[in-house]
Amino acid sequence: MARIVMKFGGTSVADCQHITHVATRVKNQWEAGDEIIVVVSAMSGVTNQLVGYVDTISRLYDTREYDTILSSGEQVTAGLMALQLQHLGVPARSWLGWQIPILTDEMHGKARIREIQTAEINKRLETYREVAVVAGFQGLSPKGRIATLGRGGSDTSAVALAAALRAERCDIYTDVDGIYTADPRIVAKAQKLDRISHEEMLELASLGSKVLQTRSVELAMNHQVKLQVLSSFEDKPGTMVEREDTSVEQQIVSGIAHTLDEAKITLIQISDTPGIAATIFGILAQAAINIDMIVQSVSADGQLTDMTFTVPKSDLSQALDVLEKNAQQIGYSDLIADSRICKISVVGVGMRSHAGVALTMFQTLAEKNINIQVISTSEIKISTLVAEEYAELAIRALHTAYGLDQQ
Amino acid sequence: MARIVMKFGGTSVADCQHITHVATRVKNQWEAGDEIIVVVSAMSGVTNQLVGYVDTISRLYDTREYDTILSSGEQVTAGLMALQLQHLGVPARSWLGWQIPILTDEMHGKARIREIQTAEINKRLETYREVAVVAGFQGLSPKGRIATLGRGGSDTSAVALAAALRAERCDIYTDVDGIYTADPRIVAKAQKLDRISHEEMLELASLGSKVLQTRSVELAMNHQVKLQVLSSFEDKPGTMVEREDTSVEQQIVSGIAHTLDEAKITLIQISDTPGIAATIFGILAQAAINIDMIVQSVSADGQLTDMTFTVPKSDLSQALDVLEKNAQQIGYSDLIADSRICKISVVGVGMRSHAGVALTMFQTLAEKNINIQVISTSEIKISTLVAEEYAELAIRALHTAYGLDQQ
Repeated sequence: MARIVMKFGGTSVADCQHITHVATRVKNQWEAGDEIIVVVSAMSGVTNQLVGYVDTISRLYDTREYDTILSSGEQVTAGLMALQLQHLGVPARSWLGWQIPILTDEMHGKARIREIQTAEINKRLETYREVAVVAGFQGLSPKGRIATLGRGGSDTSAVALAAALRAERCDIYTDVDGIYTADPRIVAKAQKLDRISHEEMLELASLGSKVLQTRSVELAMNHQVKLQVLSSFEDKPGTMVEREDTSVEQQIVSGIAHTLDEAKITLIQISDTPGIAATIFGILAQAAINIDMIVQSVSADGQLTDMTFTVPKSDLSQALDVLEKNAQQIGYSDLIADSRICKISVVGVGMRSHAGVALTMFQTLAEKNINIQVISTSEIKISTLVAEEYAELAIRALHTAYGLDQQ
Repeated sequence: MARIVMKFGGTSVADCQHITHVATRVKNQWEAGDEIIVVVSAMSGVTNQLVGYVDTISRLYDTREYDTILSSGEQVTAGLMALQLQHLGVPARSWLGWQIPILTDEMHGKARIREIQTAEINKRLETYREVAVVAGFQGLSPKGRIATLGRGGSDTSAVALAAALRAERCDIYTDVDGIYTADPRIVAKAQKLDRISHEEMLELASLGSKVLQTRSVELAMNHQVKLQVLSSFEDKPGTMVEREDTSVEQQIVSGIAHTLDEAKITLIQISDTPGIAATIFGILAQAAINIDMIVQSVSADGQLTDMTFTVPKSDLSQALDVLEKNAQQIGYSDLIADSRICKISVVGVGMRSHAGVALTMFQTLAEKNINIQVISTSEIKISTLVAEEYAELAIRALHTAYGLDQQ
């Protein structure tokens, strides 16, 4: 007998029919003798509809009211899921964020969880074997208002509950059946991973793999929560995201991630003096624009240099606007933007102890005559920027080069 | 400067455009210097959609989950209304039932309000002149669950808040502009009443006038809350519902109400013995069927008699079913049902001190050759049952006979 958190996203609870379907999976798990906490998102389209209402009324909204409105979506799903479980003969009740309560800070719209009071849920799980159906994405602010947890908030709710309730596992049910060595739509020979470490998943999540939100993976890593990513629609094991040391054999490279969501900006002929980077990125930070990769060219004459960096594609026009407005303060001769780029990353905890991983990447891309525009590295990741048109070729070649192709 | 509750029903907050419109009315009232509490229903169609979800999943539902699901509709409107008021420069915040809190009993789906804790709202009304936008229809049960107040629950929320916050008036904004002496669709010469007593409004509400729910009028009467029924769409005074003694001049008859929602059942040749009525109505009460009018014929021989009564049309088939199943216990020779009937009522507090009101009714109907099937009376009301086909003729004739026609 174990205690398990089962989280169902929007596509898994798209409508009453889907809710009925996943409730049967919950019933099976419950009948196997486990104590179950279910976390649900809003039904497909509901959140967008509610955001639409808010936008119609006012673009500059009070985030406390925004949270009151948006949290209603998960509230409805939680009630419907509890009803469906009861209908199947499984004792169940819904829990809203304020009822547990899940206590958050006051950062409405992107609140962070401070504490979860688990006494009552714990008692009911143990005494009545009652399934706790928790509305995801929401908590209670110090001032007694509903606070939502931001994008992917239901994943965060699920992981935080798993940690607080000391669950054996947190199963994230989704519309894919696990984490792959590369995007299967690009690499036909991509393989589903049986396991992956939190650290690798974190890199993959932040590199554009949409399966899990970065924040929930961070939380799982910090609290050593074992995650499983699996399909709502197929009845088979998914990918376990767990502590690095629990993996018996360690692959050097776990997967090839890529993202088309970034754009590159180059400032030509800026002054090669101390403080220039602080000036440029200070201006962008004030406009709340996140910078990812940064490369400063080596100055030929010790006086002028170029600076290249990437920003989210959605922020590109704002970034250019801000840079042009501050052209005089920064001092550059030209500004070049390119949104037709792809960031490709090789991720693996094995890199820490294996030399030559980066070399394989550079050689593979060179063999295919693909020019690397920018390089950045972390302990377990090497990222390169290439022209968008080479993306698929590069990903497939790297997948083969690192021995990830399915036999 | 006064304190006023403004309640907007589903048609008044049908969509974002309507919310924008009524928010302007709130702003005007606020700018006049009043302290404002707004109570809102769910947007048009939302409640029906949510009920549809529940019905899809299970017809035998847990009312606590039903309440969790349904209450989300008012939650969304409250947030949107607060946003729109803020957009118009009016300080405002939404309040959900559990946030105030509005404490109820445990009768989920038709909970009764026990107490409203007003300290915080009071403080904010007085200190910040902040408009309190309250989600109608909902409260908090003793066990910390959301409890809804049943049909017309938002009216009840509004009146209860007006009483608890000692508001000068509770304005019920709706899609009609007031209470009329008769249904204007039937009587072209019907007049809008400037004022009416709580007692009369209570009779009108229970007689099928859909403008206010009986329960909210009862509550207003018991707590001496002054109500106004007025239009969301036109800017003019409506009908004041207030204490009887505040009316300067008193009309004998205030209006002619009618309803087509009842059906008549006659049990032929039942035993004319003590306890027979208790047997019949005991059986119907057990099936949760409400009886309205009852007439027992005078027994010719002292042994057998007939019994006629009315039930809601929606309960007719169930009532017949129950009566037929218990035929032996009751003992009747025949059972006759008629759903093509109309109940017409003359209502007026003046009846208490004026003789001849009933006589006028009977004479008027006799002149038109309309047969009266059943009569029942209260202190301020005389109701008669006539064949449905005579309904319009009877209502118009009575309207004229009591001098209610517009000049």
